[in-house]
Amino acid sequence: MKTFVAGVATTKFGELWSASPRGLARLAVFGALKDADIDSKDVQALFVGNMLSGMLGGQEHLGAFFAEELGLSVPAFKIEGACASGGLAIHNAVNSLMSGQYETVVVLGIEKMTDHKPEDVATALMGAGSEEERLAGATFPGLYAILARVHMREFGTTEEDMAAVAVKNHYHATLNPNAQFHTAVTVDQVMRSSKVADPLKLLDCSPISDGAAAVVLSTKRTKRSVEVIASVVATDTLGLAQRKSLTELSATQKASEKAYTLAGMDAKDIDVAEVHDCFTIAEILATEDLGFFPKGKAASAIQRGSATIGKAKRVVVNPSGGLKGCGHPVGATGVKQIAELVEQLRGNAGARQVKKARVGLAHNVGGSGATAVVHILEI
Amino acid sequence: MKTFVAGVATTKFGELWSASPRGLARLAVFGALKDADIDSKDVQALFVGNMLSGMLGGQEHLGAFFAEELGLSVPAFKIEGACASGGLAIHNAVNSLMSGQYETVVVLGIEKMTDHKPEDVATALMGAGSEEERLAGATFPGLYAILARVHMREFGTTEEDMAAVAVKNHYHATLNPNAQFHTAVTVDQVMRSSKVADPLKLLDCSPISDGAAAVVLSTKRTKRSVEVIASVVATDTLGLAQRKSLTELSATQKASEKAYTLAGMDAKDIDVAEVHDCFTIAEILATEDLGFFPKGKAASAIQRGSATIGKAKRVVVNPSGGLKGCGHPVGATGVKQIAELVEQLRGNAGARQVKKARVGLAHNVGGSGATAVVHILEI
Repeated sequence: MKTFVAGVATTKFGELWSASPRGLARLAVFGALKDADIDSKDVQALFVGNMLSGMLGGQEHLGAFFAEELGLSVPAFKIEGACASGGLAIHNAVNSLMSGQYETVVVLGIEKMTDHKPEDVATALMGAGSEEERLAGATFPGLYAILARVHMREFGTTEEDMAAVAVKNHYHATLNPNAQFHTAVTVDQVMRSSKVADPLKLLDCSPISDGAAAVVLSTKRTKRSVEVIASVVATDTLGLAQRKSLTELSATQKASEKAYTLAGMDAKDIDVAEVHDCFTIAEILATEDLGFFPKGKAASAIQRGSATIGKAKRVVVNPSGGLKGCGHPVGATGVKQIAELVEQLRGNAGARQVKKARVGLAHNVGGSGATAVVHILEI
Repeated sequence: MKTFVAGVATTKFGELWSASPRGLARLAVFGALKDADIDSKDVQALFVGNMLSGMLGGQEHLGAFFAEELGLSVPAFKIEGACASGGLAIHNAVNSLMSGQYETVVVLGIEKMTDHKPEDVATALMGAGSEEERLAGATFPGLYAILARVHMREFGTTEEDMAAVAVKNHYHATLNPNAQFHTAVTVDQVMRSSKVADPLKLLDCSPISDGAAAVVLSTKRTKRSVEVIASVVATDTLGLAQRKSLTELSATQKASEKAYTLAGMDAKDIDVAEVHDCFTIAEILATEDLGFFPKGKAASAIQRGSATIGKAKRVVVNPSGGLKGCGHPVGATGVKQIAELVEQLRGNAGARQVKKARVGLAHNVGGSGATAVVHILEI
């Protein structure tokens, strides 16, 4: 059984003070159904990717919650895996289609973060980390700062190298109407931004965001559909202290290796990728672990423009602006990545179109690498 | 592709002050693997059913959390749908097997509720209800009290009728070593217990519980395995006010009708059922909506012993003691139901064995009926 993305939609990402979760869900899901030219009465199940609605808003049972709001009287599920919730929702939806249980399903990724105090959001986000890290007062910027330090020591990666990731992704975001930031930044601006967790500065970090994205998945191919040729999940330890190596995310490596095998491809076949750049160091780790660049070489390659729209000779990385430039509404991110790839593979990505993109890869991470989800799409 | 339950285990349910979530998970999962005679290295994915760990404990990302704890370096997911989280986890696990993505997976249902203040637990549980109900200060006992009142008015159901459900399920629980309560109760005791939400009294309500259950699912049949012949989910509105009828849970009706069709059976083919008796009225509604008794007739039938071990001529309902007598650790309940059915169908249920049980049905509900999950198992 094959699985196709039939339609996609993404709301604006950002500080959407006047938007409600219900409104964002409607925009995303009805947008994706319209894009797919599928009537909502033909939807057979709803998968919701979300992390924080219980902890921050007191509302769980989001499958039934959004099914009712959307007028979909169908089986509905919330799938949670921290910042990988969206990717995990896609994976479970793909499996449900391949099982023959359903023929057409909708995946909604959604998060509303800016209604809450930033310190409450930061506390809630640590629900993704290990209990030891959480109770010791660690934060995700702090954990990724450790990964950055180890990478700097092992490979000579510099703060300017990391800043180049922010420069690229902010540039890409200026080309994306739905992105949270439409401001290009320079290496100097990143370097002068305030420290968050040394060596990571404000402009090394993805923002707190609101937003939703939806995709319609189907077992039927249509003229506009894009095939999902691999859907793979891998896990690692929650905490950094239990890992063998801090210069790689082994879950990313395991998931991508299996995905390449399933797709009968390797890293050099990927034309466009949306990777999980929650921090600039995360994109460096991801592009190495996915095999786009050799270990220790991603930073200089990205700095040379090797992953930038219009400059890259091989894969363009994060044309949407990534989590850094487009925004990171946690549960929405993994679904937005798929939506971006579909627009790219269809040739509908406007100013940020990657030329001749035929194969796309999405890479969604939970925590500091405990969960990794890799999807490969082909048109 | 067929799906089989290869092994099951349930921890003691109750106020387990000295048990940790990690410890409960290990007992349940390693118990189920031992029962299945499957090595943990052959497990390919982990599905976790849980509702409250984020809201009450600040810990999300439970898929990766328990995968690490159990030494399972495999894809891992948390599935949430309020009190139906366990059933939804089983459903997604079954689909993942039928898709061909995995051959052997573990489903863990778990909840640790008694570490928290009862008022915090009650608030968190309302995360399963509609926003309107939640913000208006409704509680689940209050919502089910409304359903009870409507049933009493429409069908002449009495408080003594409802009490008979508690009497049966407490009796069954006395036969189950893992049950939270080992105390038989009388109709008079139920009637004299303190009011919680009129007409529901303390002994009409399932308790706050800790506990875990696990099942190993496989695409391979073994001598001890039990086949899953239907796995169906249906949804309804979250809130009672939006429903057409309050004398039935339409999600239960929809899910069971489809499950009977898939199984090529009807209600009279079911020998043993675990149904979602979060309140005594809920078992009356469930056994009517599942077709075991005509609408308005369940209460008197249960009172006559028509669903009691050793007395029932057709289906025995809640031999484990149900949520009422065995306990209701929210995310564990839907998984425990499957574990109980497997023990019954294997003939391993000891003092509570239902004679000649060949076909079992599990019915797990989220909220006040917004989600219903029905599984049918056959040996």
